[in-house]
Amino acid sequence: MAHDVISPLLLALAIVLAAAAAGGWLAERVRQPSVLGELIAGIVIGNLGMLGIQSEFLERMKTNSELDALAQIGVIVLLFDVGLESSIAGMLKVGRSAFLVAVLGVVTPFALGWAAGAWLLPDRPAYVHLFLGAVLTATSVGITARVLRDLGRTDSIEARIILGAAVFDDVLGLVILAVVTGLIAAANQGGGVSLLGVAWIAGKALLFLVLAIALGSLLVPRVLRPLSRWRYPGTLLTSGLVLCFALSYAAAAAGLAPIVGAFAAGLILEPAFFEAFEETRRGQTLRSLIHPISMILVPVFFVRTGMIVDLRSFANPGILALAATLIVVAWVGKQACMLGVLERGVNRLAVGIGMVPRGEVGLIFANVGATLTLGGERVVTPALYAAVVLMVMVTTLVTPPALKWSFERRPRRPSSA
Amino acid sequence: MAHDVISPLLLALAIVLAAAAAGGWLAERVRQPSVLGELIAGIVIGNLGMLGIQSEFLERMKTNSELDALAQIGVIVLLFDVGLESSIAGMLKVGRSAFLVAVLGVVTPFALGWAAGAWLLPDRPAYVHLFLGAVLTATSVGITARVLRDLGRTDSIEARIILGAAVFDDVLGLVILAVVTGLIAAANQGGGVSLLGVAWIAGKALLFLVLAIALGSLLVPRVLRPLSRWRYPGTLLTSGLVLCFALSYAAAAAGLAPIVGAFAAGLILEPAFFEAFEETRRGQTLRSLIHPISMILVPVFFVRTGMIVDLRSFANPGILALAATLIVVAWVGKQACMLGVLERGVNRLAVGIGMVPRGEVGLIFANVGATLTLGGERVVTPALYAAVVLMVMVTTLVTPPALKWSFERRPRRPSSA
Repeated sequence: MAHDVISPLLLALAIVLAAAAAGGWLAERVRQPSVLGELIAGIVIGNLGMLGIQSEFLERMKTNSELDALAQIGVIVLLFDVGLESSIAGMLKVGRSAFLVAVLGVVTPFALGWAAGAWLLPDRPAYVHLFLGAVLTATSVGITARVLRDLGRTDSIEARIILGAAVFDDVLGLVILAVVTGLIAAANQGGGVSLLGVAWIAGKALLFLVLAIALGSLLVPRVLRPLSRWRYPGTLLTSGLVLCFALSYAAAAAGLAPIVGAFAAGLILEPAFFEAFEETRRGQTLRSLIHPISMILVPVFFVRTGMIVDLRSFANPGILALAATLIVVAWVGKQACMLGVLERGVNRLAVGIGMVPRGEVGLIFANVGATLTLGGERVVTPALYAAVVLMVMVTTLVTPPALKWSFERRPRRPSSA
Repeated sequence: MAHDVISPLLLALAIVLAAAAAGGWLAERVRQPSVLGELIAGIVIGNLGMLGIQSEFLERMKTNSELDALAQIGVIVLLFDVGLESSIAGMLKVGRSAFLVAVLGVVTPFALGWAAGAWLLPDRPAYVHLFLGAVLTATSVGITARVLRDLGRTDSIEARIILGAAVFDDVLGLVILAVVTGLIAAANQGGGVSLLGVAWIAGKALLFLVLAIALGSLLVPRVLRPLSRWRYPGTLLTSGLVLCFALSYAAAAAGLAPIVGAFAAGLILEPAFFEAFEETRRGQTLRSLIHPISMILVPVFFVRTGMIVDLRSFANPGILALAATLIVVAWVGKQACMLGVLERGVNRLAVGIGMVPRGEVGLIFANVGATLTLGGERVVTPALYAAVVLMVMVTTLVTPPALKWSFERRPRRPSSA
């Protein structure tokens, strides 16, 4: 009786969940965010080969697509949960700051990345420098959202600015990526960039955001009211997750990261919509029902993120030097975000640090570059790709302790309570 | 930004969860078990093509391996949950009955299936008749477990007998499958069956059961005690699921169905083991934490089971006739299980009906047969395979209403409360 899909996944899950708990617990013991422990547990599992522990199973685990799917559902559930704790009204209040933060967090790393490329790789075409700038604009808010949740700061003004900025950042990054890949394609064919094509990409993404939030706030309560009369067990949780998965899918279809859709779904849903549900009368909320699901799936995402880190890339001095520059640029570039905060008394340092991690969005950008060629040569060479991956890793690993520190060095303000 | 693994899965999940809730709700409105509504919702989704609604996406959904993985985790979580409500002591009390029920539920369908094969397919070799008998011995306890849980009968004496018998049935079926495939392989090579090989297959399975239950009961409380002192959030749920996934994997590695391992994991864990955990003091139990996870994943399993039913196979009269005979044999054969119940006052009819569904275990047997050849000819021809699939479908679909009826026609006895 062969169960070929499920057997490796079951063993992988047992290993990942045990490692996540052990890593998270150890991290908390040394007063670090538990997510850092999960990432390091993943790095250990993924690099046991360096300690001479060779295992074909562990190697295959890194590319197991079912484990990857569970991990991605994990980060979607995390952003949905964070969105549930936020409200549209609260986000709109900081809308201007969030937009400014996003613009500064895209423009500065783009310019610095371009300049760094021109300085470090003077022999490569200008398009390569351009692409390096584009890669550095990415922001992945998963790790920041997790740290904010662990610190109990999901509803602080800093969190709202970072999360709102991350949504704008995703749209802007998408446009920049489209323009740069369009420029490279046009350079190959000797033509110009299709402005209409770029406008369509940006338009789709903005259309999704407007439709999701405006139409969602209008329609969702109307759909939930009859559903609450079903009195069918599980309807509260099921309808919440159906909206979450449907909007995540729609975001991906619009070219955005699925987590943007999950966050939007959480924003739309307000506790008031669920008052007529049986579960509510029993004292259950959508968040309390999602909690056990996220307890299991969220760590899978972070352990897996650590798992695919290849420590051997640290061994090449050339790549390491390039990566070091990218890391500095990536860090400094996002600190410009601090200037975008208009409100007084906000922990600007936390905002700047919260925008730093590039995560899977940075990797997606790098992978797009790896498929592009310019005059027959790859735009992102293997060495450059390794340096970008290293930059993504370090920005992701450094954020949890840095963000925790940025909040702890200042006492909690009454406004963020 | 391509998210190729996750996009189709997100849409599939949104569709499956919405369909499951709608189907389950409708089934309850007509006083049928909700699982029947989920199965039918799946059949509708999987056969929209017959209504002229062609969708490449829906076709690909049937073979989406990530959705399949989530479905299989769903049935594993279901059996784990059912195991949690059962106890080893309770199972041992009915051990003799469960063993007798399993033996009768294997021997009778095997003999009847063999005879039906010889009668309906007189031109095919005796090995084919033998194989047909082997396929009919399978029992898949997932659907029965679900109906028992929905009826609140998981801890009834009938449930304990059925669940215990299903574990023995899995071991016996494994041995029969090994003997029959061994006989066919030997017939091809002109040699005999390796008795040692068969003994090793049975030995592995029994060794798993003994080790899991004996060693598990001994070691698990000793591991959980220090873990409870971690005071790390989520440890209760994580340790429960790690044991569940690890034993499911070990069962599969021993050649058994993974759900046997999940059930064993649930049997081992007793509420007393978790008394020192923080979660327990907050009034949470492992079952209350697993409940939201199973609310989402269990319906995925049953909708997907319905989805892969191909209604077009009902259109072939020859296959239909063969299937009708197999269905009668499958039903009547398992009714012999009633005779194995030694206790007085037990609802024997419920035991007989609860053993009927062949589910995925029957399909696995049929798939093994589809890969076997005898003198260059396939043992399980496409027509025979379709008839077996039809038999699996009907035995699975008929069980929920039949089991519900068998419990409702007799008032609940005090012993089963």
